[in-house]
Amino acid sequence: MNAQEAYEKLAARSKELTHLGSAVAVLGWDQRTQIPYKGHHTRAQVLATMAGIAHSKATDPAIGEWLSALDGSEFTKDSVSIEAVNYREWKRSFKRAVKIPHELAVELARATAEGQSVWERARPGNDWSTFAPYLEHIVSLKREEAEALGYENEPYDTLLDAYERAETASNLEPIFRKLNEALVKLLDRVAGSSRKPDPSLKRGNFPVQLQERFALDVARQLGYDLEAGRLDISAHPFTTGIGPGDVRITTRYDENYFNESFFAVIHETGHALYHQGLPLEHWGTPFCRPISLGVNESQSRMWENLVARSKEFWSHFYPEAQNRFQALSNVSLDDFYFSVNEVEPSLIRVEADEVTYNLHILLRFELEVLLLRKDLEVLDLPDAWNTKTKAYLKLMPPDYASGVMQDVHWSSGSIGYFPTYTLGNLYASQFFAQANKDLGNVTEQIRHGEFAPLLGWLREKIHSQGTRYLPRDLVRTVTGNDLDPTYFINYLEQKYSELYKI
Amino acid sequence: MNAQEAYEKLAARSKELTHLGSAVAVLGWDQRTQIPYKGHHTRAQVLATMAGIAHSKATDPAIGEWLSALDGSEFTKDSVSIEAVNYREWKRSFKRAVKIPHELAVELARATAEGQSVWERARPGNDWSTFAPYLEHIVSLKREEAEALGYENEPYDTLLDAYERAETASNLEPIFRKLNEALVKLLDRVAGSSRKPDPSLKRGNFPVQLQERFALDVARQLGYDLEAGRLDISAHPFTTGIGPGDVRITTRYDENYFNESFFAVIHETGHALYHQGLPLEHWGTPFCRPISLGVNESQSRMWENLVARSKEFWSHFYPEAQNRFQALSNVSLDDFYFSVNEVEPSLIRVEADEVTYNLHILLRFELEVLLLRKDLEVLDLPDAWNTKTKAYLKLMPPDYASGVMQDVHWSSGSIGYFPTYTLGNLYASQFFAQANKDLGNVTEQIRHGEFAPLLGWLREKIHSQGTRYLPRDLVRTVTGNDLDPTYFINYLEQKYSELYKI
Repeated sequence: MNAQEAYEKLAARSKELTHLGSAVAVLGWDQRTQIPYKGHHTRAQVLATMAGIAHSKATDPAIGEWLSALDGSEFTKDSVSIEAVNYREWKRSFKRAVKIPHELAVELARATAEGQSVWERARPGNDWSTFAPYLEHIVSLKREEAEALGYENEPYDTLLDAYERAETASNLEPIFRKLNEALVKLLDRVAGSSRKPDPSLKRGNFPVQLQERFALDVARQLGYDLEAGRLDISAHPFTTGIGPGDVRITTRYDENYFNESFFAVIHETGHALYHQGLPLEHWGTPFCRPISLGVNESQSRMWENLVARSKEFWSHFYPEAQNRFQALSNVSLDDFYFSVNEVEPSLIRVEADEVTYNLHILLRFELEVLLLRKDLEVLDLPDAWNTKTKAYLKLMPPDYASGVMQDVHWSSGSIGYFPTYTLGNLYASQFFAQANKDLGNVTEQIRHGEFAPLLGWLREKIHSQGTRYLPRDLVRTVTGNDLDPTYFINYLEQKYSELYKI
Repeated sequence: MNAQEAYEKLAARSKELTHLGSAVAVLGWDQRTQIPYKGHHTRAQVLATMAGIAHSKATDPAIGEWLSALDGSEFTKDSVSIEAVNYREWKRSFKRAVKIPHELAVELARATAEGQSVWERARPGNDWSTFAPYLEHIVSLKREEAEALGYENEPYDTLLDAYERAETASNLEPIFRKLNEALVKLLDRVAGSSRKPDPSLKRGNFPVQLQERFALDVARQLGYDLEAGRLDISAHPFTTGIGPGDVRITTRYDENYFNESFFAVIHETGHALYHQGLPLEHWGTPFCRPISLGVNESQSRMWENLVARSKEFWSHFYPEAQNRFQALSNVSLDDFYFSVNEVEPSLIRVEADEVTYNLHILLRFELEVLLLRKDLEVLDLPDAWNTKTKAYLKLMPPDYASGVMQDVHWSSGSIGYFPTYTLGNLYASQFFAQANKDLGNVTEQIRHGEFAPLLGWLREKIHSQGTRYLPRDLVRTVTGNDLDPTYFINYLEQKYSELYKI
């Protein structure tokens, strides 16, 4: 078989697997947003079967032969050509897939589909004892998966690598350390400030329908194509890229609190913009995918924080927000801006401000590493969680729901996922600084409601590049520099020094 | 391989195919109710891939070997044991599947997914010229399918057999003829009556939310478990059995007309009750399936017409309906009952009354037979449609939307499906007559809002029997008689003679 034929065979198989992935994405979206209460057991079985089919197709020995026919061929010469990128990704996926026993692949799919549903039901009732055995089972499967995949230093690394290519715990530690030091200092300075936003802004009346309409109108203005997307409600906001023409987001509402849903929608819109900007003509091959969760998160965090929590953004949108929400009619722009940027250690990660957010991640990252090392067991997780919360945030969760059970991730088997949130924050600041250089004054454009230049820049530099560059290479290619937490630290220090007059 | 092992292999494969079917059901439901406008093309590709995977798994030569190992074994002895029924169904499915070329299976899935979406968009704009080429392609694929499957007399028969086992066009013709004669006579007598329901009842104000709540409350009282189901909006109402714990229905609303959505919901509830009453512990094997569309339709039509269009039903529910809908407050029960049973030839099948309904089916059945014989081409369909509408209903469709484009079926490749509606009406009356015999006075129970006896009887005699009996055998087993249209004709004559005082 010549290289061209092998490439076409691989592309056809890749398309089939992508289509299966699209079907699984719909099943997953449905399970988080629409499924009737009693349908979860059936769905878990179906997802397990789908995972089994995908695993068989992904580990077909023919793939090994096709890859061999490509080794050293012209396709692999230019490392950033579309063909070479696809080859690189196919090879990696195959190598990983064949290491996973078939039964493990199937059971992981089943157990995590079930786990998420159990979590959804157990969390509101604070029911750790129901949830814990499911989580124990999932953690043991993930440990098994890590052993099967193999690793150099940490079993955690191979799980992390699934979400953030080429990242390792030991690579992350110095970054997290530097960041942590800076954040704790900044947090102390903020705590010393006498300024505080008006607390009444946290309890207004924001009818859910109006919230939805406003958030969607803003999302549309940022560039989210809603003829190719939709917004639903789920226990934990998420974005799912089902395929070209179909990228969906979710949120959750608090009728008395504007920030929760609005910033969740903008966050997910950031993800959706990335998915909608991928090189869709290559859909079905790995080239047409977000390169990593960290880069994906850089898009959501950029739109959520650097754009939508900026003064300029609200200079543009606040008059309309005041038109729509009675509760804002007597609140000044300055007060509102301050209130959406209040720094205050709190228990819930997804509601955390920009300064404390990464402390939530650090806590989870450290616990995950310990879990994978078997230096921590699920039954001891709640205590470990509370101890670290006390240490980093000086708070004590009053219950499981606002402590160890707050996130969906572990119930869905997504261990190694959390660090990508912090990486996303770092990438976002570094990218944004570069966009400012390249485009002139982006914040000024935002003040005028002009989001097309920034989106166009992201489309060109990041979205349309698909998986061409691994994350750290992408940062270097786009910004000319290595990943550097200083961008993020500087951004926070400047913003919050001004806000808290410190 | 011994028979036991072969049976287990077949059961495992069957489960896998059932799970794939469940995934496809979710994808289809999503496409009819949720998908964003631009997502249809992607979805059609995904469904094609899923069909390809299912076809490969269903035509695996190993299945032939497993079936051979079962031939003549103890499993096939008692023809109505669960094992023998599964064997019968596996054999039949395999025999049919291997006759369909792989490319045809894939293209049918793709083209019909696309066809439905094109129909959905073209119908409101009356856009036949956009839709026609898609329909032509689908009809040519269905002709190809019929040739591949083979047939004795009519190419139509093998397509019909996919929906209604062991039925043929020539079997149906005498039944349709007898029915048609009786209906035309009854229709003439009705036309001669001077009685007419108050026409103002067709234009009231029925807020959509109240309609939804009322219909769901009634559906729940009939026995639909809504923790294992849900109700959504679609262009054409349907029911989909995704699996145990997940049976969904849809409807569409007219804010000024109560009947359209209410009776659609009750109709679909009839289907849903059947699905929820299947022998779910056998899910994954063919035993746990509706035996045919005709039997399925007997359930929907029984609940919709024999139950929910009865005087007794409204004796029970009308006070509550009057409480909920201002528009009904000054309408007497008798007037309301008459208005939901008005006989009036009209253009739209799904809104047709019980007397004219089957004329709509006859028209479609005759056109389908001609299409499959190639005695009629898609481009000539609108004229043929109008000519037959004129002949049977004495009406002329003013446009395509209320004529040849009104139904979703052909766009989804469901040719051979329509006759099952009439069969459903016939089965329903015959079953209902038997239920009355077995249970005493069912209509009296309905007057007291007691639906559990009827549902229990259906569960025992029909739902829980899965595919044990082929449709006509089921009729014989349940009622002790062959299928006989007299039950239905008698029911109509009695009901409408009384109503129209003829």
